Amino acid sequence: MSNNDLHGYYLEDLEVGMSASYARTVSESDVYTFAGVSGDDNPVHINQVYAEGTMFKQRIAHGILTVSFISTVLGTRLPGPGAIYVDQQIRFKAPVYIGDIVTATATVKEINTAKRRVILETVCTVKGNVVATGQATTMVDRRS
Amino acid sequence: MSNNDLHGYYLEDLEVGMSASYARTVSESDVYTFAGVSGDDNPVHINQVYAEGTMFKQRIAHGILTVSFISTVLGTRLPGPGAIYVDQQIRFKAPVYIGDIVTATATVKEINTAKRRVILETVCTVKGNVVATGQATTMVDRRS
Amino acid sequence: MSNNDLHGYYLEDLEVGMSASYARTVSESDVYTFAGVSGDDNPVHINQVYAEGTMFKQRIAHGILTVSFISTVLGTRLPGPGAIYVDQQIRFKAPVYIGDIVTATATVKEINTAKRRVILETVCTVKGNVVATGQATTMVDRRS
Amino acid sequence: MSNNDLHGYYLEDLEVGMSASYARTVSESDVYTFAGVSGDDNPVHINQVYAEGTMFKQRIAHGILTVSFISTVLGTRLPGPGAIYVDQQIRFKAPVYIGDIVTATATVKEINTAKRRVILETVCTVKGNVVATGQATTMVDRRS
Repeated sequence: MSNNDLHGYYLEDLEVGMSASYARTVSESDVYTFAGVSGDDNPVHINQVYAEGTMFKQRIAHGILTVSFISTVLGTRLPGPGAIYVDQQIRFKAPVYIGDIVTATATVKEINTAKRRVILETVCTVKGNVVATGQATTMVDRRS
Repeated sequence: MSNNDLHGYYLEDLEVGMSASYARTVSESDVYTFAGVSGDDNPVHINQVYAEGTMFKQRIAHGILTVSFISTVLGTRLPGPGAIYVDQQIRFKAPVYIGDIVTATATVKEINTAKRRVILETVCTVKGNVVATGQATTMVDRRS
Repeated sequence: MSNNDLHGYYLEDLEVGMSASYARTVSESDVYTFAGVSGDDNPVHINQVYAEGTMFKQRIAHGILTVSFISTVLGTRLPGPGAIYVDQQIRFKAPVYIGDIVTATATVKEINTAKRRVILETVCTVKGNVVATGQATTMVDRRS
Repeated sequence: MSNNDLHGYYLEDLEVGMSASYARTVSESDVYTFAGVSGDDNPVHINQVYAEGTMFKQRIAHGILTVSFISTVLGTRLPGPGAIYVDQQIRFKAPVYIGDIVTATATVKEINTAKRRVILETVCTVKGNVVATGQATTMVDRRS
């Protein structure tokens, strides 16, 4: 298996409007593991009593955990392996609770062939409601 | 221990120029655990032979893992618990390799008291070199 | 503590009919961690809405996670440390759901002293119902 | 995103000879995490001094961790989501050490359309050497 076999889309393969998704039930385990690996042990994520005293009324997932599902789409599906993550803008619109199913979707919005830049709209939803929205830029290899 | 005891800075406590950091050696375990929790098993993170065939020459950490250290600063130090993550912009400037020590720093840049918005400059460095830079907006409670 | 202290059964200690078990409530955390460590993030394991649309109606554990409990019996109890895992056949008979308590049992079925091969019947059950069945071959040290 | 969007290959899409792979550097973190989630804490996996006293001379990965990469191919690539894992036979041929890059490959060998069974040859290699070999049966949905 060569690197070519593992490579995702090349610049020539991409078109505006192409789209890919990743969906996942955010488990309590995900939130705690993410707290451990990031160091973000804000009590709103890991302390149920504290969380009940906030406007959220229960523990919420880390916003950046939601963003990580965008990374999964970009890094494994569209454009996939080989693409370089250049930037990400994200606006958090609503909380994600433990047990919510987050669907992260990236859609190609603009392709700059000269600079090999691909801009994707990135949206995360729970039951059809937007919980985070933004855009990402990736740098993609030419096939030739 | 009440929620007040756990609360971070209130709006009245913050001033432009205040700064806080979180630093962490990014272990192989961190990268693999992040791959698991996000679903992003792009071979550049978990396949050494593949990574050697890329411009990076070795496995690199996920960009969003680096961003998660910013979340740690915002959620646990400045402004700390109670602050709501509104948005994050990030530009990746250089790869983070397994074993690198990433320092994430957030610095208060602008305070909009009426809207309770606090804008922070967010920078991640490895050995003094910027690996990611951007800015975050948080919404912070008033003390009164 | 020498290697001898840690060694499991030797060939001379084993008899046909000997049996050992390992039982564990399969937590949501186990399933998500296994998804991460294996890379198997099939939505039937990590996406509740998707799983509801399948014949299983809810998220199921990975079959190989169930097999791993057989490995635990063989590697830590019978024959235990020192035994080499030669082969495993497994047939999955029923799904394992999050929260199920799986009991993995290995029973010595055949001992080939000349070749130092020990064949074990391996069965996994949930509430007395077989969820997986098969057999394993291990190679076991002689005491002398 | 409907279940259809997430579905892998249907029976009609498969042909003998089709093949897919998953490759991963087996990290120390993977081995320890697998030990934790399976309960298989055989010292040959987690005790370097003990392992040095064995024929392997160093800690080795769990055989079933290697098998789990086959599950990843079957469950996420070929046939992919929707396929039911019916059985797996595996023969371990050589140890996998921490740091080895395991490539798991599944190749369609036989399709029984009437019974919707697809038999795949499953091979795991490290640097081109076979470390485990066997075959799997999956049950695959018809498109119509």
